[in-house]
Amino acid sequence: MQDNTPPSADWRAQLHEIIFEAETPGGKAFDVALLILIVLSVLNVSLESVASIRAEWGSQLYAIDWAVTILFTIEYVMRLACVGKPLRYARSFFGLVDLLSILPMYLSLFLVDSQSLLVIRAFRLLRIFRVLKLGHFVGEERALNAALRASSRKITVFVGVMLTITLIAGALMYLIEGPANGFTSIPESVYWAIVTMTTVGYGDIAPQTFLGKFLASAMMIMGYGIIAVPTGIVTVEVSSALRNSTRTDACRECSAEGHAADAVHCKYCGAKLD
Amino acid sequence: MQDNTPPSADWRAQLHEIIFEAETPGGKAFDVALLILIVLSVLNVSLESVASIRAEWGSQLYAIDWAVTILFTIEYVMRLACVGKPLRYARSFFGLVDLLSILPMYLSLFLVDSQSLLVIRAFRLLRIFRVLKLGHFVGEERALNAALRASSRKITVFVGVMLTITLIAGALMYLIEGPANGFTSIPESVYWAIVTMTTVGYGDIAPQTFLGKFLASAMMIMGYGIIAVPTGIVTVEVSSALRNSTRTDACRECSAEGHAADAVHCKYCGAKLD
Amino acid sequence: MQDNTPPSADWRAQLHEIIFEAETPGGKAFDVALLILIVLSVLNVSLESVASIRAEWGSQLYAIDWAVTILFTIEYVMRLACVGKPLRYARSFFGLVDLLSILPMYLSLFLVDSQSLLVIRAFRLLRIFRVLKLGHFVGEERALNAALRASSRKITVFVGVMLTITLIAGALMYLIEGPANGFTSIPESVYWAIVTMTTVGYGDIAPQTFLGKFLASAMMIMGYGIIAVPTGIVTVEVSSALRNSTRTDACRECSAEGHAADAVHCKYCGAKLD
Amino acid sequence: MQDNTPPSADWRAQLHEIIFEAETPGGKAFDVALLILIVLSVLNVSLESVASIRAEWGSQLYAIDWAVTILFTIEYVMRLACVGKPLRYARSFFGLVDLLSILPMYLSLFLVDSQSLLVIRAFRLLRIFRVLKLGHFVGEERALNAALRASSRKITVFVGVMLTITLIAGALMYLIEGPANGFTSIPESVYWAIVTMTTVGYGDIAPQTFLGKFLASAMMIMGYGIIAVPTGIVTVEVSSALRNSTRTDACRECSAEGHAADAVHCKYCGAKLD
Repeated sequence: MQDNTPPSADWRAQLHEIIFEAETPGGKAFDVALLILIVLSVLNVSLESVASIRAEWGSQLYAIDWAVTILFTIEYVMRLACVGKPLRYARSFFGLVDLLSILPMYLSLFLVDSQSLLVIRAFRLLRIFRVLKLGHFVGEERALNAALRASSRKITVFVGVMLTITLIAGALMYLIEGPANGFTSIPESVYWAIVTMTTVGYGDIAPQTFLGKFLASAMMIMGYGIIAVPTGIVTVEVSSALRNSTRTDACRECSAEGHAADAVHCKYCGAKLD
Repeated sequence: MQDNTPPSADWRAQLHEIIFEAETPGGKAFDVALLILIVLSVLNVSLESVASIRAEWGSQLYAIDWAVTILFTIEYVMRLACVGKPLRYARSFFGLVDLLSILPMYLSLFLVDSQSLLVIRAFRLLRIFRVLKLGHFVGEERALNAALRASSRKITVFVGVMLTITLIAGALMYLIEGPANGFTSIPESVYWAIVTMTTVGYGDIAPQTFLGKFLASAMMIMGYGIIAVPTGIVTVEVSSALRNSTRTDACRECSAEGHAADAVHCKYCGAKLD
Repeated sequence: MQDNTPPSADWRAQLHEIIFEAETPGGKAFDVALLILIVLSVLNVSLESVASIRAEWGSQLYAIDWAVTILFTIEYVMRLACVGKPLRYARSFFGLVDLLSILPMYLSLFLVDSQSLLVIRAFRLLRIFRVLKLGHFVGEERALNAALRASSRKITVFVGVMLTITLIAGALMYLIEGPANGFTSIPESVYWAIVTMTTVGYGDIAPQTFLGKFLASAMMIMGYGIIAVPTGIVTVEVSSALRNSTRTDACRECSAEGHAADAVHCKYCGAKLD
Repeated sequence: MQDNTPPSADWRAQLHEIIFEAETPGGKAFDVALLILIVLSVLNVSLESVASIRAEWGSQLYAIDWAVTILFTIEYVMRLACVGKPLRYARSFFGLVDLLSILPMYLSLFLVDSQSLLVIRAFRLLRIFRVLKLGHFVGEERALNAALRASSRKITVFVGVMLTITLIAGALMYLIEGPANGFTSIPESVYWAIVTMTTVGYGDIAPQTFLGKFLASAMMIMGYGIIAVPTGIVTVEVSSALRNSTRTDACRECSAEGHAADAVHCKYCGAKLD
């Protein structure tokens, strides 16, 4: 299947190795540089949101932001250049993240209110996960994902049960405490119930009546007791997930990962794996 | 045992399959429709409790509520019609839930204060669990139930210990802090102790004296340490529960579920399982 | 060893069986009655502490308190009568609890300020654990105790580490935030650190400065991460503890429990176990 | 390798055994005395920070502080004397801790503002870990360390994911709630997100808008669900860590610990282990 890669595959293969692999010295250096750049850009965005700092260093932060954006643009172009199937990569999750991390700045030239871009900029941090490919992290990341995926259904059921309990509890508290004590509506009461069951407990809303406090206590103890359930489930999943492993190299064609240890061809584009 | 079903069992069998089974296309469609309807009705009830929304959209919400109720009534009648033993179903848990989810609206025609019905309406959400029959969810739900049932006794003991600690701690804090610092009575102090031990920590009541803060700290660390116990228990139970499984189809006679994988007859009404 | 019990051992044996065993119908009835009495007396003490209730029902609550006390006194005397070694029992944990649960009332006849007795009365609830002997609870209780005992050392180390972290963090916050922001002293700051690390988070004291908030965030994530450690330890212990079991009957001589399944003589007083 | 120890090794060997080993009676006594001294000094520092206490007992506390410092100085000198390679020890972690715990007082003779020394003094508590060598604690400490080390990478990834979620959630809340509702900047919002995800929930900042409360609820349930992941990981690690063990005696040359059970030579300085 290699034949659908252009003849000039050698320099692209090298570039691909530097950008997509983490095992080679070049790849390591690239990943570290990228990590620093990402953290820098995120700090930049965060600091920009602090009024006092923006007032004093606004122009400097803006300059840094442009520098970062240009570097990310170069990286994005390079990624598209060295991948066998640029379109497939552009449509992939990380492809979109890469695009999202540069687009806002360019759009900001045309748009006025720059605040709504803060969120999109925050997405930059998602690129940090690509750097998690670094050496030993892979295994763990895989294990975590496997465990989460394996127990996601059970946890969905669990969350469903939680939500049902909080809804009923919220409705009850709405009746017991009423708007006078801060439980102004069922949604508000359900919000309180979630805050309580998850043991966050802001205290902005709290039961005032004896009956309300009694019900709240029951909920807390219940919440305290049932948090054990998802933990138990995930523990079991993790322990089994940690036994499995997958190969760590990305496909040269579509830069897809997570191929089985015995895989010979990419399970997404069918290209041969080296 | 099939012979105690009427001769016209064919259309009822089909209806039964659509309503009670989730494997057939008809059953899936029915479950999805029901799920949407339930969520809709719950949202409806919740929104109705928000003063501002009720003021503006009151009549529309009321109309939706009636539409939902009528649809639920039709469903309830259909369930009774296609089940071999209607009375047994009507007395079953879900039978009562179905009745509870339509009764309030009809009663509201005669009753004035409609608020006390909010709670009963919230019970509608309990019907959501029937939809959990959908495909893969069954296994997990079973596992959860099995784990919870298996560890319920241990957790009861654990909660008993917790309550004893909170009662003693509450009484102590009542003596140390006293009404002046918000610990107005032993029940109030026990409420505070539960809020603290479960790490909810509203902050509406908090120790003021040095001794009180010292005792509170000890409680927190204790609570932080012993939350591990129920978790450990449930983890062990879950890991063993996940190994077992049961057959997923409901009994045509009494629509009971949870029969052992090797069961031939319904363990509740004795009817043959297909 | 039986011979150091008096000739009139038969009626005492019967009484012993009713009071100390839970398997016989008589024993079950006695335990249930005791449980009700204990809960009643605890509720009584709690309600008495509520000013409004005491004002209205004071005399009735006082009467109930006396009735409970007299019944507990009779029980205490009976226990001493039917045990082979009364002194040993009187000095045992439950013997002292029994004494503590009746003494306060009699002392209150001579003492004026009755508040300081509330705590001692709360100890009554400790008797509830004896009722945990009921049927199936034994196994779990044993497992819990075994697990807790087995992991107590590890958890001690863990708590030691926690306390060290909270002390250092507290001292740091005391320097960063200072008395101006509510961190009036190191003990106060350590209290805050414990409230934070255990995720209780009252909010009565909270960092105000940027540096303080940064340090607090680090602590929270750390606390959130390390709560997994005791859980992991206990889980391992519980899973092994649940495999073991002990015989459930008490020694007729000294009413000691927890003898190994293959024990023939009481490991405390050496009396033969039936 | 013994030959690089001086001829007068006998008294130093004895001293070394008393100070660095915990198995001998002399060593035990020394460790207990040290533990008491450490706790005393920490209490001293803490109490000194309480304004009211300092006002009344200032001079006494100052005297105690000097007494403790002198005793610690003697201990430090003794440690240097009996260790084969003083420089290596002085540069080791505990060597620095020992120095840090005496230096502040001597420096305070020259420095004016004594507050900044409180932190350094708090480091004294770090010496408590050396006392953890006492008897049975070793095994557990090892197991804890092993488990933490083994799962540190996975937990790093986990914390990385957490931080990413909190950053994005913080940025979102900053846009939704805005400075008007206390979310004055992205760092501030991220702080709030961490407080919420870790279920600490101070309540000093809390969402006011409906959308904000909805997002917060989602975060809480997510945080409540994913706390299970690190727990699961650590549980697995702990269960495997508890199976391994290492030898407990320190190297006479460099007082290094943690040698494998089958080790014959110190893995740091190569000296023969007795």
